Amino acid sequence: MHMPADDLAAVAAELLERVRTRAPRVHCITNAVAQTFTANMLLAAGAIPSMTVSAREVAGFAQRADALLVNLGTFDAERQKAALLAVAAVAKAKKPWVLDPVFIDRSKPRADFAKRLAAKRPAAIRLNQPEFEALAGKGTTLARYAKARRTVLGLTGEIDVVSDGKRMAAIANGDPLMARVTAMGCAGSALLAAFLAVEKDSFVAGACALLALGVAGEVAAVRARGPGSLAVEILDAIHGLDRQTLIARAKVSE
Amino acid sequence: MHMPADDLAAVAAELLERVRTRAPRVHCITNAVAQTFTANMLLAAGAIPSMTVSAREVAGFAQRADALLVNLGTFDAERQKAALLAVAAVAKAKKPWVLDPVFIDRSKPRADFAKRLAAKRPAAIRLNQPEFEALAGKGTTLARYAKARRTVLGLTGEIDVVSDGKRMAAIANGDPLMARVTAMGCAGSALLAAFLAVEKDSFVAGACALLALGVAGEVAAVRARGPGSLAVEILDAIHGLDRQTLIARAKVSE
Amino acid sequence: MHMPADDLAAVAAELLERVRTRAPRVHCITNAVAQTFTANMLLAAGAIPSMTVSAREVAGFAQRADALLVNLGTFDAERQKAALLAVAAVAKAKKPWVLDPVFIDRSKPRADFAKRLAAKRPAAIRLNQPEFEALAGKGTTLARYAKARRTVLGLTGEIDVVSDGKRMAAIANGDPLMARVTAMGCAGSALLAAFLAVEKDSFVAGACALLALGVAGEVAAVRARGPGSLAVEILDAIHGLDRQTLIARAKVSE
Repeated sequence: MHMPADDLAAVAAELLERVRTRAPRVHCITNAVAQTFTANMLLAAGAIPSMTVSAREVAGFAQRADALLVNLGTFDAERQKAALLAVAAVAKAKKPWVLDPVFIDRSKPRADFAKRLAAKRPAAIRLNQPEFEALAGKGTTLARYAKARRTVLGLTGEIDVVSDGKRMAAIANGDPLMARVTAMGCAGSALLAAFLAVEKDSFVAGACALLALGVAGEVAAVRARGPGSLAVEILDAIHGLDRQTLIARAKVSE
Repeated sequence: MHMPADDLAAVAAELLERVRTRAPRVHCITNAVAQTFTANMLLAAGAIPSMTVSAREVAGFAQRADALLVNLGTFDAERQKAALLAVAAVAKAKKPWVLDPVFIDRSKPRADFAKRLAAKRPAAIRLNQPEFEALAGKGTTLARYAKARRTVLGLTGEIDVVSDGKRMAAIANGDPLMARVTAMGCAGSALLAAFLAVEKDSFVAGACALLALGVAGEVAAVRARGPGSLAVEILDAIHGLDRQTLIARAKVSE
Repeated sequence: MHMPADDLAAVAAELLERVRTRAPRVHCITNAVAQTFTANMLLAAGAIPSMTVSAREVAGFAQRADALLVNLGTFDAERQKAALLAVAAVAKAKKPWVLDPVFIDRSKPRADFAKRLAAKRPAAIRLNQPEFEALAGKGTTLARYAKARRTVLGLTGEIDVVSDGKRMAAIANGDPLMARVTAMGCAGSALLAAFLAVEKDSFVAGACALLALGVAGEVAAVRARGPGSLAVEILDAIHGLDRQTLIARAKVSE
């Protein structure tokens, strides 16, 4: 696919606008460290987060949500059970969901669980290079894995790469200080879920979400003095992000 | 009751001063998303938060606290057990407690549990309109419910309404950006608990807590660039809130 | 030991530089209220936090970490189990660990558990005066307890005192507003763990970590308007803290 930076930036602006207007519900099963920042990222973008992991009600929340995020940080028994219940609920309701397999390169049981979830057709998987290798094995490419699993991969790092097996986008936005804020990747996955709630093409939703977060990070970095203020400023930046800024700053290649 | 804005503002300033001077202990059983912001709101106001949900020690913490908050977000088994233990402990110790029935409009088991707790004489219940309807049924008014249950209701929304069945206050303070920060309502309920710890008239405590939060939100909104900075600024604003600002900004009617 | 303020400040700058360069992994078993701020403090300092409490993987995370923090706030069953597993893992791997016995003065079961952990040779224990009394009994001095247990005590308060039974440092840095931010002490304990990861002399690591946090708190207080902004600014301050500022501000006596 040919999608110049300007085009993707314009689409990202359009999707952000949809999130602000439609206020999609995003249910998040995420780790305890990330919960507050993730909820605030979704609220800043215009979405409505819910966060329960209780087995008695998680299926109901997931089913009535417009998208689901399953993040494997803090891998406790209750969250594992909640993840399976919620994924089953959104599968039945035909709603998209995102898998964020945090730190599976550091924990075999977590990697096994991630593989089990990855087989349940997430619309997108957001992860970093070591996590991708733990998920897919060392020899596999992004495109091959995405194609085989019919999913979209969002590989974040210095350059973010999004692939659905046929199309590919490389996004060179963001700021190094973003890596000094806990749960920044987790919040990016939540943003991706919000974009999936308003855009059926998961590749477009994935590329636009990572672009929006990267540009917001740059805007925040200009204003921030360090990682503490960056975490605050990026919420303000996502909240105020406009088409003009997205177009001016987007560094996308395919 | 006739209570012009100036009067309520002056009383709110007096109660804030009492919280700062007496540093009441407020035990909070609250959801994982809200814990940090809630603790910081209480500390900013001058109160001392504790947060344990462990069955082995929650009764002791609640009993020695000056007020208790029970918030039903993230409705896990451990927190439900903790809530029952803590409510029993404060009932025995004759200390006030606040119920915050988060999202009970979205979850039947949570609504059932909220009704069970509401029967245990909370001094105040803080909630929004859909939550009130889930708690009380659609036909009931605030005043009728408050009177029947001998409690104070704090219904928050664009205008906050406080009722004890006889008296009523409507508070038109606050800023729309407050709804874009997670756990803002939860933190308001915690502030209410801190005010109950220093004021026996639950209606006055409730109205003053919501007024103080609303005015702090306005002060914060003037300085904030978005929801990220609002969450920071409102803690600073509560910490520095004075009588003059409360009187100048209070929009209260009965 | 004679260690003038200038010397300790210079060593603190050196240890901070090591943390930034080596990026040690610090595994934290800490309370839900403190997790996000603690992770952000470690990231701001240059360390890599992990936070899982899952019994299936906590030993692996602890074993591969360069230091461990065990914080007893939110004293749930899962965290108690995790603490024992993690401490056993670092003992085998000969890695240092820090005990932070939060609020043990308010809970007998928590104090009993803290004593059990304290017998397992933590490299350092960070706590306040009431917590120390609950741990050691009222008659005991810091130096005597530290010597008997072959550990380093970091007693924080208006003046922080660090002792290993032979050496003693008193640090008069910090700002009163730091006590109005939840998990500030917890984050200090995490910083201590990061310093232990790069410095074998636990007394030096302990004194330098508390000095660095105190000076960062002062830098933050100059910029902050209240406790909300202080929590943000102190992360920026730790991130940017340099030798010159440490030397200019250090108030250390032995």
